[in-house]
Amino acid sequence: MTPGRFITLEGGEGAGKTTLAELLAARLRSTGLEVIVTREPGGTPNAEALRTLLVEGETGRWSPLAETLLLYAARTDHVERLIKPALSAGHWVICDRFSDSTRAYQGAAGGLDADRIAAIDTVTLNGFTPDLTFMVDMDPAIGLERARARGGGHTRFGRQAIPFHNTLRRAFVEIARVNPDRCILLDGAQPPKQVADAALAGVRARLGVIV
Amino acid sequence: MTPGRFITLEGGEGAGKTTLAELLAARLRSTGLEVIVTREPGGTPNAEALRTLLVEGETGRWSPLAETLLLYAARTDHVERLIKPALSAGHWVICDRFSDSTRAYQGAAGGLDADRIAAIDTVTLNGFTPDLTFMVDMDPAIGLERARARGGGHTRFGRQAIPFHNTLRRAFVEIARVNPDRCILLDGAQPPKQVADAALAGVRARLGVIV
Repeated sequence: MTPGRFITLEGGEGAGKTTLAELLAARLRSTGLEVIVTREPGGTPNAEALRTLLVEGETGRWSPLAETLLLYAARTDHVERLIKPALSAGHWVICDRFSDSTRAYQGAAGGLDADRIAAIDTVTLNGFTPDLTFMVDMDPAIGLERARARGGGHTRFGRQAIPFHNTLRRAFVEIARVNPDRCILLDGAQPPKQVADAALAGVRARLGVIV
Repeated sequence: MTPGRFITLEGGEGAGKTTLAELLAARLRSTGLEVIVTREPGGTPNAEALRTLLVEGETGRWSPLAETLLLYAARTDHVERLIKPALSAGHWVICDRFSDSTRAYQGAAGGLDADRIAAIDTVTLNGFTPDLTFMVDMDPAIGLERARARGGGHTRFGRQAIPFHNTLRRAFVEIARVNPDRCILLDGAQPPKQVADAALAGVRARLGVIV
């Protein structure tokens, strides 16, 4: 059994990750692949219970460090109980947000040292990392408007002001810059179909599959 | 302002930690000290919300690693928002369970590497450690009977079999053995008053205060 591939989608609020996940999954499935679409925080019952604690309440409810520990508790549950078993069974997994979101939200925007996040990542995931990551780049003013229009954007993070979201945007671009073998930057301002085509070109080039 | 002292009580289920905390706090208060009694997991609203997730559900609900990350998320909230501010204000803090419980439950009994727990402890607490720890030692068969008699012992851990609790007991004794400057082993089979007297003698000897 050839193991499946693990693809993550990263970016700010309303960047179009959910639509991209659906379009990408549909195209991969059309080639006969089994594809699981999941999200973080969440993806398993335990992780979804933690998601509720993370998205509800006051903006300052958790410190960035407490938040990071909660996110990695949810992440290890998700990885060990859903992602790794699926990959072992030959399925592809597309995940909306993963460790890069912690680096951007709790690290760059929240002020937690990158070294501390890296230490928690290593002790938790022991080097497990996506095969390919798409960073969907988008002007936060437009992204937040989109998120709110669809009834989202009212979470603890969605309520943060524009400078917070600009910091996130720069953080994702920087992660893509320093991890060129794993990351591909996509322009979220393009129509969804074009964003998905660019992502499929990336899948062909980086993962060597015909899609 | 002289900072307060941080005392933790550790041991298995039904070892008598709650009674000891009350007797110790009463005696310290009688000398004019301000004393806060708290517990883990818990002690703050966020940490109590996590306690609910940790004590409810199936025994195997969380992996030992996920559990450790949740415990440290609760612990940093408790330390930063209750314990450290209280100590800075000159209050003494007595805490029922702290990091040693994670080393015993998730480490020795749960099978998570001591190195991984140590890494999470360091990244979270940055060296913050109790001034004095009392390990209340007790035969688990008697302790579990006590815990059940008072309506406890039905949590995810209380339901574990005797060999699990014997492993915990050995782990606490071993932590006391390798940390003699911080830890004092107490015999939980003695009457509560005698256990408290032994603890007070420890406070006098180790912390240099007249109680």
